[in-house]
Amino acid sequence: MQATQPQLNMNFIGYEAVTGQGDSFQSFAPARNEALTDEFANVSAEQANQAVDKAAAAFSAYAKLHPAQRADFLDAIAAEIEALGDDLIERAVLESGLPTGRISGERGRTMGQLRMFATLLREGSWVDARINPALPDRQPLPRPDLRRMLVPLGPVVVFGASNFPLAFSVAGGDTASALAAGCPVIFKAHPSHPGTSSLVGQAIVEAAQKTGMPDGVFSLLHADNDVAQGLVAHPAVRAVGFTGSRRGGLALLRVAQERPEPIPVYAEMSAVNPVVIMPGAIQENAVKVAEGLAASVVLGVGQFCTNPGLVFLLDSPQTDSFLETVAVKIRASAPATMLNAGICQSYYKGVQQIRVLPGIHVLAEGETEASHDRTEGRATVLTTTAPLFLSNPDLSHEIFGPSSLVVVCQTEAELADCVQSLEGQLTATLFATPDELHQSSVDWIELLQTKAGRVLFGGYPTGVEVCEAMTHGGPFPATTDSRTTSVGTGAILRFVRPVTYQSFPDALLPLALQNANPLGIWRNVDGKMTK
Amino acid sequence: MQATQPQLNMNFIGYEAVTGQGDSFQSFAPARNEALTDEFANVSAEQANQAVDKAAAAFSAYAKLHPAQRADFLDAIAAEIEALGDDLIERAVLESGLPTGRISGERGRTMGQLRMFATLLREGSWVDARINPALPDRQPLPRPDLRRMLVPLGPVVVFGASNFPLAFSVAGGDTASALAAGCPVIFKAHPSHPGTSSLVGQAIVEAAQKTGMPDGVFSLLHADNDVAQGLVAHPAVRAVGFTGSRRGGLALLRVAQERPEPIPVYAEMSAVNPVVIMPGAIQENAVKVAEGLAASVVLGVGQFCTNPGLVFLLDSPQTDSFLETVAVKIRASAPATMLNAGICQSYYKGVQQIRVLPGIHVLAEGETEASHDRTEGRATVLTTTAPLFLSNPDLSHEIFGPSSLVVVCQTEAELADCVQSLEGQLTATLFATPDELHQSSVDWIELLQTKAGRVLFGGYPTGVEVCEAMTHGGPFPATTDSRTTSVGTGAILRFVRPVTYQSFPDALLPLALQNANPLGIWRNVDGKMTK
Repeated sequence: MQATQPQLNMNFIGYEAVTGQGDSFQSFAPARNEALTDEFANVSAEQANQAVDKAAAAFSAYAKLHPAQRADFLDAIAAEIEALGDDLIERAVLESGLPTGRISGERGRTMGQLRMFATLLREGSWVDARINPALPDRQPLPRPDLRRMLVPLGPVVVFGASNFPLAFSVAGGDTASALAAGCPVIFKAHPSHPGTSSLVGQAIVEAAQKTGMPDGVFSLLHADNDVAQGLVAHPAVRAVGFTGSRRGGLALLRVAQERPEPIPVYAEMSAVNPVVIMPGAIQENAVKVAEGLAASVVLGVGQFCTNPGLVFLLDSPQTDSFLETVAVKIRASAPATMLNAGICQSYYKGVQQIRVLPGIHVLAEGETEASHDRTEGRATVLTTTAPLFLSNPDLSHEIFGPSSLVVVCQTEAELADCVQSLEGQLTATLFATPDELHQSSVDWIELLQTKAGRVLFGGYPTGVEVCEAMTHGGPFPATTDSRTTSVGTGAILRFVRPVTYQSFPDALLPLALQNANPLGIWRNVDGKMTK
Repeated sequence: MQATQPQLNMNFIGYEAVTGQGDSFQSFAPARNEALTDEFANVSAEQANQAVDKAAAAFSAYAKLHPAQRADFLDAIAAEIEALGDDLIERAVLESGLPTGRISGERGRTMGQLRMFATLLREGSWVDARINPALPDRQPLPRPDLRRMLVPLGPVVVFGASNFPLAFSVAGGDTASALAAGCPVIFKAHPSHPGTSSLVGQAIVEAAQKTGMPDGVFSLLHADNDVAQGLVAHPAVRAVGFTGSRRGGLALLRVAQERPEPIPVYAEMSAVNPVVIMPGAIQENAVKVAEGLAASVVLGVGQFCTNPGLVFLLDSPQTDSFLETVAVKIRASAPATMLNAGICQSYYKGVQQIRVLPGIHVLAEGETEASHDRTEGRATVLTTTAPLFLSNPDLSHEIFGPSSLVVVCQTEAELADCVQSLEGQLTATLFATPDELHQSSVDWIELLQTKAGRVLFGGYPTGVEVCEAMTHGGPFPATTDSRTTSVGTGAILRFVRPVTYQSFPDALLPLALQNANPLGIWRNVDGKMTK
């Protein structure tokens, strides 16, 4: 079958470009505050089921491919995305309101992730091969030959995030890691950037065809909530990836748990990413810490899941000047267009609900008025005390956007109580000197570690490096599964399970487990790593 | 605090031996069909909460121990169990009705598991350390130093199984792997062997005290269902291990999912462990295959989670003589005492419900009448056809005990339909020659692999080796989480999550991640394995 010609508003059920049979909708340009003329149409439940059926049919052939073939596919996706050139950049800028430089960087990150997984597949050791050869003479019983590796779960449904129209969307980390694992992907596009989604979906379909992947290895669907939940409920679906709101993630989790056969949902939902600042760190470097904090709060109009929404400051003689440095930076920050009108409204509503409370003070806001025509977000930093923070659980909930609440604590005990009261987080950051950690009665690193998947010593959480050592995950409700990461090579481990092969003839074993180690991977043989 | 004197009927809330404040009950000797005189008392909800509070308080200190100290603790548990000598063997035989040789072997397996995890901890590489050193000069942005390893989840509640009073009970694989991971354990004893449980609980407490573990690292509780579910609901509990019935496992899963903060439940629940036998395998070795099958069905009075409850036979001229060989062995098998009266009744009820159905034939049963006084189970093997099997889903449900249903299929397609219709399994076994696999239009290995955590080529599933390469797990409802194993070193991975440390001074990092690699473990540095 030939690749279809690029069409901005298509769904892809496997290789087939189809017009959705459900409701139609228009894309929206937040920076212009206007709907675009392109019409998109959601798929019907029947069309969604066709995509899953195709994925289920493709699974067997796809899972059996040589890892290098899957790697070629991932590389080809990166190349096809690159080949979209400025069309993709312009469309993503138009639909997200994010600046060109940011989108361009995000495209690089997206291609980098795909190529990282291709490299991982070619190296091959990620399958965690373990071999215990037969011991026919063991007493009192012989040991059979046992070999174990990780195998793909099956078709995966992925939901795109609004805030990263490329890196956490159609060809983002969830898709890349699921495809790398050997799982076909049915992608549910985010309605904030449907054109961007269709372009990237088309690129994946082209790459799949060019590299000879089975039809159904990837589908791109525009879909309403009911149809989307139907995807999660489909018996052939084996796992779900999601990045978005807590309400959205929990709704999918409920659907997945209520299936006759429950499946894992990897939902990244919400976090306030606490930053704990001790006096020693301020004494050492007040200006740098303060300016860095302000910059992190407003980065990307605060639309990062790792945005520092809560700062805990242990009071000291430097507190006032530190906060004033933050305030100066915040006042100087220009308002900027947010991803969509809904997010912008929620942001102002969230800030407003907090700022009117007794005991909450406005430390600073951006001095320039925001344009509501361009759905712009204006930075706001508030302050309060520990007793007030501890008395109102609402103060620890995420407000998605460029705001942060600084809690000034009078004692370490008060500060520890504040941190202990928090729910699970993606990140937790500590500014302190080794000396004051040594003298403290609180084990701050350990306390923060119980709350988050990534602990930073200094620095700011808003950069999420794509690498082997990244954990982008954390205890509930930051994610639904603290045992996982959605960024970095570890993300592939969400879409696999171990299978043991007992007493197999060598030729019938998967390559990764054959005696000659034809893939040349690291393997655990009777507890020893060998290659 | 000194260790308390051994008392058969105690609960242990950390180091404290306490009498339960709930209902009391007696232990039962199935082989004598009589209650024993010892009185046990369940803990109250308040006492159960005290155990969790102690575990939560112990977690921080326990998780921070040098891995070698946790290894010493595990070795000490094995030594204390050994020191219980014949008292333990006798009590376990009395309460389980299992023969002395079997219990003795199971004790060896239990100590072996504990020592295996001690070895794993001393070697240390299981923490999957990954390091991406800082790249301060990288363009366009520097990379911070990122280091990641697995850390323990927190307190774990473990439920003992009835069918392995030692190896899947108080000091069994779930307890050993959770303690190895760095998680305190609150153990809920199985009421079928309360005296055995108290003895082993006492041994763990002794070992903990002798090796200087924090009070609360382990508790042993006798508890009713309400109190047990309360343990799962307790906010400080972070994971649950369970081996038992589907109803029991699903009840705990529901409690865990309905918590404000859901937690993972690792429940091993039910399996029929299909065995697929192709004509070529029978032609090669009919007698050995048939006798092995019969032996596997009756092993341990069929009370293994890996008991082969379903056999799919592709019809051939050898079918009748093959089945007759099975029948001869089954008829010659002696009835034997089952674990408790409830299990024995359920077994006969389950067999009876099936054998009266039209189209079900009794191939053979043990010729000796079973003694109902000794709650003995008598082996039964039934046969049926593929159409009948496919028309009645009840035929694929587990009957716990020494029975098996042989489904004689007329075509490979029929056989494939039967296998495809099955739920998830712990094991799936294939008897075939490489030649007939090569000629078949069905990829049998792949089909079986989608259904089970362990696939056997020949052999029988009833032996579960404790080693690196074992997967004792499988797709739902064999377990609640197909991504895990409850046997072998991989079991430790159920009780950990990754944490990334960003830009940490070397001295503040965990030992596993420090530059000098003081633990001498294998680590992934920028994608390369190094030591």
